[in-house]
Amino acid sequence: MKEKLKIGLLGLGVVGSGVPEILIAHQEKIRQVTGMDIVVEKAFVRDIEAKRALGDAFNIQLTTSINDILDDPEISIVVELMGKIEPAKTYISQALEKGKHVVTANKDLLAQHGGELVALAQKTHCDLYYEASVAGGIPILRTIANSLAADDITNVLGIVNGTTNYMLTKMVNDAKTYEDALKEAQALGFAESDPTNDVDGIDAAYKMVILSQFAFGMNISMEQVSVKGIRGLALEDVAMAKQLGYEIKLIGASQKTGESIHVEVSPMFVPKKHPLASVSNEYNAVFIESSGVGESMYYGPGAGAKPTATSVVSDLITIAKNIRLKTTGHMFNAYRHETLLTSDEEIFSKYYLSLEVPDEKGQFLKLAEIMNQADVSFDQVVQQKSEGDTARVIVITHRTSKKKLDAALEKIKKSTAFTLLNTMKVLGD
Amino acid sequence: MKEKLKIGLLGLGVVGSGVPEILIAHQEKIRQVTGMDIVVEKAFVRDIEAKRALGDAFNIQLTTSINDILDDPEISIVVELMGKIEPAKTYISQALEKGKHVVTANKDLLAQHGGELVALAQKTHCDLYYEASVAGGIPILRTIANSLAADDITNVLGIVNGTTNYMLTKMVNDAKTYEDALKEAQALGFAESDPTNDVDGIDAAYKMVILSQFAFGMNISMEQVSVKGIRGLALEDVAMAKQLGYEIKLIGASQKTGESIHVEVSPMFVPKKHPLASVSNEYNAVFIESSGVGESMYYGPGAGAKPTATSVVSDLITIAKNIRLKTTGHMFNAYRHETLLTSDEEIFSKYYLSLEVPDEKGQFLKLAEIMNQADVSFDQVVQQKSEGDTARVIVITHRTSKKKLDAALEKIKKSTAFTLLNTMKVLGD
Repeated sequence: MKEKLKIGLLGLGVVGSGVPEILIAHQEKIRQVTGMDIVVEKAFVRDIEAKRALGDAFNIQLTTSINDILDDPEISIVVELMGKIEPAKTYISQALEKGKHVVTANKDLLAQHGGELVALAQKTHCDLYYEASVAGGIPILRTIANSLAADDITNVLGIVNGTTNYMLTKMVNDAKTYEDALKEAQALGFAESDPTNDVDGIDAAYKMVILSQFAFGMNISMEQVSVKGIRGLALEDVAMAKQLGYEIKLIGASQKTGESIHVEVSPMFVPKKHPLASVSNEYNAVFIESSGVGESMYYGPGAGAKPTATSVVSDLITIAKNIRLKTTGHMFNAYRHETLLTSDEEIFSKYYLSLEVPDEKGQFLKLAEIMNQADVSFDQVVQQKSEGDTARVIVITHRTSKKKLDAALEKIKKSTAFTLLNTMKVLGD
Repeated sequence: MKEKLKIGLLGLGVVGSGVPEILIAHQEKIRQVTGMDIVVEKAFVRDIEAKRALGDAFNIQLTTSINDILDDPEISIVVELMGKIEPAKTYISQALEKGKHVVTANKDLLAQHGGELVALAQKTHCDLYYEASVAGGIPILRTIANSLAADDITNVLGIVNGTTNYMLTKMVNDAKTYEDALKEAQALGFAESDPTNDVDGIDAAYKMVILSQFAFGMNISMEQVSVKGIRGLALEDVAMAKQLGYEIKLIGASQKTGESIHVEVSPMFVPKKHPLASVSNEYNAVFIESSGVGESMYYGPGAGAKPTATSVVSDLITIAKNIRLKTTGHMFNAYRHETLLTSDEEIFSKYYLSLEVPDEKGQFLKLAEIMNQADVSFDQVVQQKSEGDTARVIVITHRTSKKKLDAALEKIKKSTAFTLLNTMKVLGD
C-alpha cells in the first residue's frame, strides 16, 4: 500500500474545492512523482450544511472547529485558503507550531507578516510554501528562487493584478470609461463589489513585496512601497497613450540601483514593442531583467480557481517530495540581503505629464523655462486643441531623476496657473 | 572552511568561459544557497596555448587529455559544452560510469540519445541536468518538471530557434528577403556559416523532442517529428500573412489528442493577438496550454553565451543542493508515458494555402469543388491580381483534419493545372 499524505484544508470555496478535485484527477501522476497519495482528509468551513455536498463528493470530513485539524496528528499539511489576515495568521502559526507544513495563497498575509511566519517555520523545521500568492498560475516565485540563483536580478516589472489589467484592456481597446470597465469586470467576477484593493493598487503592492523578497532578498514593508492605482484614470490619458505608441498598464516595479531597491505600483506608459504591452485582459506577467539571462518574461492567468488550485497542488507535491527525501524545513526562498531603499536622486525614468494650462500667449514658454531650470528636458510635447479658456499640454520627458521631476512639478504648482492632471512613468530608455 | 565542489569543464569556448566567470561573480550568493564553493578545477580543450590566458584568468588547469578529468576523483561534476554527438556522448557516458554528475547544453545529443543517457545516470545514481539545451535562458524544463506535475499539458508551442525568429522578424518588419535576412543573421553571429540546422528546422526539432519528453513523458525520435524549415520562404507569403492579420513564425508544436501526441516543426501563421506573435528578433518563447493553469508562456533569450552559461550554473547549483541534501540520482524529469502518435485523421488545424492558378474562367469553381468534395471549407479567400497567364489564390481553411487536407491537395495536384506554392498551419480556432 502507498503512503498517504493527509491534508487539512482551511476554506472550501471555489479555490479550496479545486484542490481535492485536482488531487483526485492527478492521483496517478502525483503518485509517480512523489511516491505518495495526497488526500484532503478534513476541511474547516463556516457552515457545514452549505458544504455538505462538496464534502461528500470528495470524501472530506467537514468541521467548524479548527482544532479538529490542528490537533490531528495524522494531518501533516495545512492548506490555508481563507484569505485576509485573521484568523488565517493565528491558524497558520498554530499549525507551524504543531509541526505541520503549510501551503497558503494568502498574499495580504505574506506581504505583511511573511517575515514572521517564515521565521516560525524555520524554528519548527516546517515547510511554508505560497507560490499561488503571486500571479496565480505562474510559477514565478519558484522560478526566481531556483533558476535565478546564478543570476543578478536588476529589475522586476509585473502586471500582477488581473482585475485592473482587464479594465485597462477594455479602456484602451474599446474606449470604455473607468466606470464601465469596472462594472464589466464586476459582472464577470474579476472584481469584487468593493474593488478598493484592486483599483487602488494595494493587491499589486502585496505581490510586489513578495516578489521583492524573492528577487532581492529584502523585506520591504507596505509603507515602503509607493502605491498609486488606476481609480479615475481619464480616457484622455488612455487615448494619448495610444496616439503616442504606448499602452497604459498598472505596473508593479521593483528596481535595483547599486545595492538599494525602489518598489512602486503605478499606472505606467509601456511602449507597444515591450513584451508587457501585449499582456491583455485578466492575464498577468512578470518581466525580469538580470545580468545573466538578460530579459525574460513569465506569462499566465493571475487568478481564477483552477490556476490557483493547481499552484497550491504544486506546492503540495514539493512538500511531499521533501517529506519523502527528508529535506523539509528549508526556506522557500533562502536569499537574504539587508533592506536598503533607493533615494529619489537615484530613481530615474522618463515621465508622462498631462497639464491643463490657460489658453494664453507665453504659457508654453513658462513651462519650458521651469522644466529647463529643473534640468528636466522634453522628449515629446503635444499641445491639444483648447477647450474654452484652457488648453491641454502633454509632455514626455527624457530620463530624469524623481527628485528633479518632483522639484519641477512643485515649481509648476507654486508659480503657475497650470493644473497637473496626471503624471505617469514611461518604461524604456 | 567551506566545502569545495570541483567541476571539470569540457570545452572552453564562449559559453564555457562564461561558466567560471559566473561562478566567481556569484560566489557569495551560491555559497549562501548551497553551502558550498563551486569551482571549475580543470578544462578539457583542444589547444592549450589558445586558451592559456583564459585558464590563467580563472585559475583553471587546462588539459588535452580527457582522462585528466574523468580519472580525477576530486572532480564530482562534468560540464559538457562541446556540442555535437561524438565525442561528447562517449565522454558523458564515461563520466556517469565513474559516478560523476553531468550538466550539458547539448540538444543534439539529448534529442537523439537522451533516453540512453538518462538510463545510464539512473543506473549509476548520478544527476544529469540539461536545462540549457532548450531555450537557453528560459528555465522551461525545470518549470515543466516541477510546477506542472499537478497539471495536464495539452499543447506546447515553441519559438525555440533564435536564428530563424530573427530572420522572420526582419522579413516581416523590414520586408527583407530570405537571403538578406540570413546574411544579416550570419553577420551578427546568430547564424552559422552553414545554417542548415537552423533554417531547416532541425535545431527546433531537437528541442521539441526534449520538450515533448518533459511535457508528455514520451520518448519521440527525430524521425517521428514532421519537420519543415523556413528555407526559401517567399516574401509573398510574408506579405500575405501581414495583410490577413498574422505573423509568420517557425513554430515547434507538440500537441496531445486523447492519449497520443503529434510533434512538428513548421512555419505557421500566428494571429497577431496570440502571445507568441509579439516574440521577435532572437528571442525564444514556449507557450503552454494545460487543463489546470490554462495558458502560460515563458519568454527569454534562446541562446547567447551569458544566458546559456547562467542556465548551466543553475543546474550546477541544483546538483550542489542535491549533494548537500544527499538526494542525487533522481531524474530531471521522472514523468513517463507510453509513446503514442496521433493519426492524420485526428490532427486538426486551420491551414493557409497559396496556389498559382491559370488565369482562366472557371478555375476558382474547380478549386471550390475539390475542396468541397474533400470536406474542407474556406474561412478566407483572396485572389490576387494576375501576373501574365497565372493568378495567385490564397485560401485559409476552417479547421480540418490533416488527412482531409492532404486528400484535397492530392486531388489538386492530380486533376488541375494549379501549382501549390506553399501550405502552412494557422494557429487559433
